[in-house]
Amino acid sequence: MISAKMKSLVANGSVIRAMFEEGKKMAAIYGAENVYDFSLGNPCTPPPESVRKAAVEILMNEPEMMVHGYMSNTGYEDVRISVAQSLNRRFGTNFGPGNLVMTVGAAGGLNVALKTIMEPGDEVMLFAPYFGEYNNYISNFDGVPVVVPPNFADFSMNLAAAEPLFSPKTKAVIINSPNNPTGAVYTAAQVQQLADLLEAKSKEFGHTIYLISDEPYREIVYGDYEVPYLTKYYKNTFVGYSYSKSLSLPGERIGYLVIPSEMEGFEETVAAASVANRILGFVNAPSLFQRVIGRCADEVSDMSVYIENRNILCRELKAMGYEFMEPQGAFYMFPKSLEPNDKAFCAAAKEFRLLLVPGSTFAGPGHFRLAFCVSRATVENSLESFHQLAKKYK
Amino acid sequence: MISAKMKSLVANGSVIRAMFEEGKKMAAIYGAENVYDFSLGNPCTPPPESVRKAAVEILMNEPEMMVHGYMSNTGYEDVRISVAQSLNRRFGTNFGPGNLVMTVGAAGGLNVALKTIMEPGDEVMLFAPYFGEYNNYISNFDGVPVVVPPNFADFSMNLAAAEPLFSPKTKAVIINSPNNPTGAVYTAAQVQQLADLLEAKSKEFGHTIYLISDEPYREIVYGDYEVPYLTKYYKNTFVGYSYSKSLSLPGERIGYLVIPSEMEGFEETVAAASVANRILGFVNAPSLFQRVIGRCADEVSDMSVYIENRNILCRELKAMGYEFMEPQGAFYMFPKSLEPNDKAFCAAAKEFRLLLVPGSTFAGPGHFRLAFCVSRATVENSLESFHQLAKKYK
Repeated sequence: MISAKMKSLVANGSVIRAMFEEGKKMAAIYGAENVYDFSLGNPCTPPPESVRKAAVEILMNEPEMMVHGYMSNTGYEDVRISVAQSLNRRFGTNFGPGNLVMTVGAAGGLNVALKTIMEPGDEVMLFAPYFGEYNNYISNFDGVPVVVPPNFADFSMNLAAAEPLFSPKTKAVIINSPNNPTGAVYTAAQVQQLADLLEAKSKEFGHTIYLISDEPYREIVYGDYEVPYLTKYYKNTFVGYSYSKSLSLPGERIGYLVIPSEMEGFEETVAAASVANRILGFVNAPSLFQRVIGRCADEVSDMSVYIENRNILCRELKAMGYEFMEPQGAFYMFPKSLEPNDKAFCAAAKEFRLLLVPGSTFAGPGHFRLAFCVSRATVENSLESFHQLAKKYK
Repeated sequence: MISAKMKSLVANGSVIRAMFEEGKKMAAIYGAENVYDFSLGNPCTPPPESVRKAAVEILMNEPEMMVHGYMSNTGYEDVRISVAQSLNRRFGTNFGPGNLVMTVGAAGGLNVALKTIMEPGDEVMLFAPYFGEYNNYISNFDGVPVVVPPNFADFSMNLAAAEPLFSPKTKAVIINSPNNPTGAVYTAAQVQQLADLLEAKSKEFGHTIYLISDEPYREIVYGDYEVPYLTKYYKNTFVGYSYSKSLSLPGERIGYLVIPSEMEGFEETVAAASVANRILGFVNAPSLFQRVIGRCADEVSDMSVYIENRNILCRELKAMGYEFMEPQGAFYMFPKSLEPNDKAFCAAAKEFRLLLVPGSTFAGPGHFRLAFCVSRATVENSLESFHQLAKKYK
């Protein structure tokens, strides 16, 4: 009796969720410490102490009817001021509270952006490999995903392949940098090329093509890589942000959507996003954690465990003969699978108690995703299994 | 450039939100204490102290990676056990954790239920007067609202008028008791009649017709009125609950959806609701407040201010000649407007600095909604204005 759309979603399930269940089963058989679960993008570093301190202080000292009450559907104004000022300080932007809608994570923000702009049948372009959940968000509004083939050399955006895929139906392009699953960070030069392409295609088709940037990993970057701030390159950009990874708060569902003042029809768009936030059932972002963010907008969790894990895995897996691009950001590696069939490869990995996600789940076949947001011990103990797995394929 | 659906929503705005803005303007002119704002259903009694205590204890003593981390999309199992046991104790139900999906308030829960079952073009029946937001939730899934005319005598469900409105397209009926805007509580006898009608119509049309019960006001009941627990009357019932009113936590977006084991296709339905919770962008209900609910599932705010306000307003407005049903639950009264045009009446009320919402906003013309979740002082100071308003119409 459930809807046809839901029926197929339930039947197909989520590969990553299935792996999660598999992991639990394997942990019961072999012991949790002997299963190396690299399947989930769940932060493994705690929130900074300032988050707990802020939450307790707000609970003890701010008026409780205000802390837990309704506010504007876009969020508390003082919180939006604090977030805007933090962005302006860090990225040289010029946002005020009117450019921000506080949202139920980035997932909430992306759905609000899509609800705001989408007509049934509109096309939304995605650069493979990409986070599979975008397909569902697009489907929520009866849109059609158009997938640009991967640039396997460096996982940059394949703009040459994208160009002919634009059509009169193209309403938006979703990008995600630092990228899940590849760990790529798109360069300023690439972002400028994308912006130029979107300008040209908007002109060619006589309507705005929006850029929707999904940025939960913005603060997780290695070495000298910089993540360009997209509204500075393309005015019709929605930025969806989440504190899930930067403050290790994935369960709290707190993030925001940036709508720059330069966007076409800015005022109507903000009004629509506010209504969308309400009628999609979010109503507003959770109030206590909005207020926590107001006090912690500049903070980030200690990322050293990701840096260490990345460095160990890069060094050791390279020595074993795995081929991959060193992650530039996020907490994912996306190596080539040691046989062309990435699903068969990930099944073989299970024999060595390694839980890896097939790249085809992300429209990146012939690869696997390794989420290294795990303990240092898991990384170190897993190395022998990666070694055995490589030996099996020699 | 925003979508056609959103364009009309932004243009039409929300009458209640517009009133909220109007109220702020009037407060600036006359002073906040001289404006009697009965327009918003925002709780005016604080959360019980146990909520603050639980939140602080969880922040100080529970492992922070668990408190703020991802969990199953349906919510923490221990929290769902605690909520199920509380329901079982209070309502004689027999729920376990598998019957509950923790949601982003009741608004989130209703959208999850509709996403789970709706096909485009499906009809959803609503008993007028009703909360206007249901139209938007139904529209999110391309459904069609079918409105049953009000039973103005006692604001019970007009089942005689409903019967011929069922069609092969009827997928669900949404009810809300205690009711916003009327304050009516549907009796067990009425609920039984509705259940019988739904059974008969499901059989007639050869498919399940769902009952979706929106219950944020369940704990706010006056005198001897009892709110029947709907799953005991009709197995294909989704119960959407929110702690917004019972614990005065509207900003925190915390509630749940009940799916009884007896529902047709129970397991598939729960699986679909879990996926819907994820892909609509909620992902999961906010984690800290899930854990607070786990400790406070039996608690309610001090409701004495609502009882007092209700009693004063019933006594005084009756004496002034207003005609109304005494509220049986929730914190709303729905008196007749003193002229047939309720919009004109509410405009006239503004001259006396009374902010009242026209009944036609709720498909209940010729009436007005008075939200008495305000301070005792506001109620007492407003009485002279209600008196002047009545005099104007004599």
